[in-house]
Order: sequence, then C-alpha cells, then structure tokens
Amino acid sequence: MTAMAREMAEQPALTAALLERRHELAARVRAIAPRPLAGVILIARGSSDNAAVYGRYVLEAALRRPVSLAAPSLWTRYGLEEDLRGHLAVGVSQSGRTPEIADTLARVRDAGAATVAVTNDAASPLAAAAHATIDLQVGREDAVPATKTVTAQLAAFAILADALGHAPWPAHAWEAVPRAQQELLSDDAPAAAAGAEIARARSHVQLGRGFLYSIALEGALKVAETTGLAASGFSVADFLHGPIAIANPGTVAVTYVAAGPVERDVREAAARARAAGAELIVVGHEPGDAELHVPVPERVPEALAPLVHIVRAQQLALHATLALGRDPDRPQGLTKVTPTT
Amino acid sequence: MTAMAREMAEQPALTAALLERRHELAARVRAIAPRPLAGVILIARGSSDNAAVYGRYVLEAALRRPVSLAAPSLWTRYGLEEDLRGHLAVGVSQSGRTPEIADTLARVRDAGAATVAVTNDAASPLAAAAHATIDLQVGREDAVPATKTVTAQLAAFAILADALGHAPWPAHAWEAVPRAQQELLSDDAPAAAAGAEIARARSHVQLGRGFLYSIALEGALKVAETTGLAASGFSVADFLHGPIAIANPGTVAVTYVAAGPVERDVREAAARARAAGAELIVVGHEPGDAELHVPVPERVPEALAPLVHIVRAQQLALHATLALGRDPDRPQGLTKVTPTT
Repeated sequence: MTAMAREMAEQPALTAALLERRHELAARVRAIAPRPLAGVILIARGSSDNAAVYGRYVLEAALRRPVSLAAPSLWTRYGLEEDLRGHLAVGVSQSGRTPEIADTLARVRDAGAATVAVTNDAASPLAAAAHATIDLQVGREDAVPATKTVTAQLAAFAILADALGHAPWPAHAWEAVPRAQQELLSDDAPAAAAGAEIARARSHVQLGRGFLYSIALEGALKVAETTGLAASGFSVADFLHGPIAIANPGTVAVTYVAAGPVERDVREAAARARAAGAELIVVGHEPGDAELHVPVPERVPEALAPLVHIVRAQQLALHATLALGRDPDRPQGLTKVTPTT
Repeated sequence: MTAMAREMAEQPALTAALLERRHELAARVRAIAPRPLAGVILIARGSSDNAAVYGRYVLEAALRRPVSLAAPSLWTRYGLEEDLRGHLAVGVSQSGRTPEIADTLARVRDAGAATVAVTNDAASPLAAAAHATIDLQVGREDAVPATKTVTAQLAAFAILADALGHAPWPAHAWEAVPRAQQELLSDDAPAAAAGAEIARARSHVQLGRGFLYSIALEGALKVAETTGLAASGFSVADFLHGPIAIANPGTVAVTYVAAGPVERDVREAAARARAAGAELIVVGHEPGDAELHVPVPERVPEALAPLVHIVRAQQLALHATLALGRDPDRPQGLTKVTPTT
C-alpha cells in the first residue's frame, strides 16, 4: 500500500477526532476574534490555498462579513502597510514552515489583525505568528501529495465558521461526515475506473461551484502533482467564460455536485462540456448525464460536503497515477515543504 | 487580417483616449466612494476577472484597504445578506450583460456598498446597478476573444487606484503606456516565434507574480480560448507548490517579468521549470535563462506593466492559433456574451 493510500485511510478517524475537539477549538478562536468583525483574510499556498477557497465560502456564508484571499507578495515583497484592526487573519500551512505564509501572518498581525494559525505543527513559525492555533493533530504525512492534512484544514474552516457565525448546517450534521468518508474509502472501484479514464485523457478539467469549487481546484492540483499531467480546476461559471473551448473529444471533465442551490448550474455546465465532446465523470449523489458516476452519499449537507467529496478527489488522483505506473508518494520535482518566500 | 489582430492594433489609441479622460473618470468615482473606505469588492468572470486580479493588487497597494474578489454565487444562489456600508464594489463586464455580474452588483448595492461599473456599454444592466460608471468607449469588439476591452479594463483599474489612493508610479508614467503598446505591435516577430512553440507544445503554463500575475492568468485563458489547448496560469509561488510537476520536456512555460521586487522570484521559478525540462519563453525586458525571448521595453513601471505585457499575451495566443491553422475570431464552442447566472 502506498503512503498516500494509507494516509487517506486515516481520514475518518482523524476527522472525527478533530470534530470532537470543536468546542475547545471554537473557544480558543472566539477568545481572540475582534467584535464587531470587519472582515476575514486567508493566507495560504498550494493545497492549503484550495482549502482556503472552501474557507472563503463557508466563512462569508456564516459570518456575513467580506472574506478575501491575501496576496502574500503585497506583504512580503511590496512592503504593504495597512490598518487591519478589527480583521481576523487565518494562515494555513501543513508544516507551518512555508516562509511567505508565516511571514505574511506576522505582518498582518503587526498591522492590527487578530491571527489564527491552522497547522499540523503547533511549534512552527506560523503558530508563533498567531494569537490562536488550530492544531490539526493528524500526525506525520509521508506522501508528498497532501491528503489528510487538507481534509483536516477543510474541517478547521467548518469549525471556524461554526465558532464565529451561523454555519449553514444543523448541529447533527457533523457526525455524518466521518461515516460518509469511510463509506467512500470502502468503495474504491468507481474511483479506480474514473482514474483510469483520467490517465488516458489528452486533457483534463475539474469543475464545481459554490462550496465544492474548492474540491475542483484541489482535485485538479492533486492530479497534476501526482501524474505530471496538466489539469485545471474551474468554477463552472468561469469555465463557461472561455475554458470550455478545451472541452472536446479527448478531454475528461470531472464535476463535483451535491444537492443544493448550485446543483443545476453544475449539471448544465457538465452537459455542455459533454455536448462539446468531453467525457463526463460526475462525483455526487446522482449521475445526471455522466458517462461514469462516482457516487457520494447524500446525507451530508452541501456546505459540509467538501469534507466528503475530497476523498473522491484524492482517489481519482491516486488511481490515475497508479494507472500510469507511477509512484504517487514521490512525484517528480516536488518536495514536502515548499520554501517560497 | 483577423478581427482579433485589428482590434489589438486599436489598443494604443484607445488606451491613450481612456487615459486622457482619467481626471474626469477619477472625479466621478471620488464623488461616490465612501470615506473612510472599509474595503473593496471586485465582481467579474472570465477575462474581466483576470483584469480584476490586476485590480486586486493595484487597488490594495494604492488604497491600503483589503480588496477581495467576490464569490458571485454567494449572492445569486445562496442568498447572502451582508452589511457592506463603507465598502466600494466594482463590477466588470465588457457587455455589461452577464446576468450574474449585474445581479451581484445590484445585490451588493442593496447591501450598502457604493458601486462602480466598468463596462463598454453605459446603457447596460451593469451600469444601471452602479452609482458611477467607467465607460470604456472602445467600440464594438467583433472577435470572440476579448483584447481591447481587457486592456481598457486594466487601464480602468489603474485609473481607479490613482483616483482613490496613492498609485505606485510617477505621474509621467501614463504617457509611456500607449507608446510601449505601439512598439510591441510593430514588433510581432518574436511573439510569432513563441506562438509557434506553444502550438507545438504537449502542455502549456504561463507564470507571473505580483502585478503581472494577472497577465499570466489572462495569457493562459486567451491561449485556451483561441487554440482549444489546455493552458493554465499560475503565480510562481503557487506553481512551485505542486503544478511544477507538469514542467517536463514537451511543456512550454511562458513567464512575464518586469524590473521590480518580484523579478528574482519569477526568474528563479522560470529557471526551475527549465531545469525540469520545460521550454522557457520569457516576456520582459531581459531574457534571463530564456530559450526564446519576447522583449518588452523597460520604460513602464512594474505596477503599470500589465497594460503593456497584455499585448504580448494576446500576440502569443493569436500566433499559436494561426500556427494551428485555426480562426482566432471564432473559437469552437464560445460566444461573445456568456449568460451565466
């Protein structure tokens, strides 16, 4: 078994453990969050940035304050000086050791923001720059492609949204998440079939909207990292504004859907990609127009669904890589900690 | 001559005309902008969204307030209710007729934001939802891939930054922009050679950082739209966190550089992509490690450089398309106005 598969298998237990700590974590964050809250700033790169895209949606939906993804270079390279009193800033990094993320969090703290670190290492420079830390406690991650840490980051954003605002799901929804993750891990075959299609494709896109847009971004990044094949993730609205031009025979389009206000938009864009010749893989509760359906149980509300659909996104990347005869744990040209400044 | 090439050729005169109106446009926007300003929200899709990424950098640098790119679905699909008094919102759409953009601008206006429309049609629904309109006046655009309207949108963001804050360039820098654009249009050959390389590539990425990150996004979108080939744009910092895995022999990497605080980051990422086997095309004042250099004169400051480098991005897409024997004016599967909601 690859390290990537082993770490994916740990996710239900690790997610359950993190969600069990949610009241304690919520108290930590409530203690330092400004009231009234002017806005939220998220600071991340790579897979952590995709988790932050989920954070961008779930925090703005729950807190009803503007949420933005920081442009780190404004802080680390252009010397931005800004008054951020009243803002909450969240820095996200598995290792807590990406210099530009820790540096940016320290600078926005100096600018007056209350700061939170979401990291697997509570002794990292990122945690040192934070007023409060959400320590993910998912243990060492050996595979280069991040899996269990990304899922824990998604859970951290859900916990933050619930801690600071009105999360758009009922309280009993939490416990369905680890069970749904386990169900997907026990049902690998549809993802293996889809992964083999991705491995054969000439080009590859992943699509979502709303809360699941983050999973399209992360799914595409995971495929690009593990296989070395080009892959792009899009919101369906952006996809229709140009990139749909690449949907033709030889393209595989993966779409993530859940029951909710954007399901129709996603299914319509998927149908247009298929009509243009792309092979359509649907990851969700119902196949719709899919040529290949990778099922996800419907019992988790849409706003928490990224914590479940992420498992399918990982399985697609893993199986595409295995179908190509490559090692998912050690992709060419990548290292575990990327020291961008 | 294709409509795309003809419309590209109009850009120096249209940019000069728009920049000449900057004092009048600035007065319009100053009259409605909240003081003090809480933050800025940008609303756009497709190429307009890439122009908004430039806006995100130049406005935060000049205004020193948080700038965010809106998630339109939160407004149009999830019924977000938020108090946006004190915020400035800018909706960007060439036609002003993309329903979700006009609808989102109307909703944020109802939420208390002061609203600005950046559009080519001052009688459009987008303009109707705005307290002030920056009418681009670039005339009808016949080619489906947007060129002169995107350049005008970039100029509109530069004008907004200068109107409301401390723009990071000297006052005399404006007049250098149309002349530099004209110089590039009169020197097509290096871009034609680079376009032919893109047409032959197995995969294709475009890279930038800071102000020029927007041009990497727009350059990649333009290639995807006009050629139907997959192409992704990245910030170099994000690129190193995973997508560099796709840099290998058969990949063409286009990088946009200008003299400034991020030049070294971009050149280092470019060198890493080349070391991994990618063919390196550098669009900028100096070739660095490039196998193919597409020159841009150095006389425009980095923070205004996107208004000039954009011409090279367009030329690359145009020539890649012509090298494939396709019609850049009518890409498969695309229409001029994309009615996403």
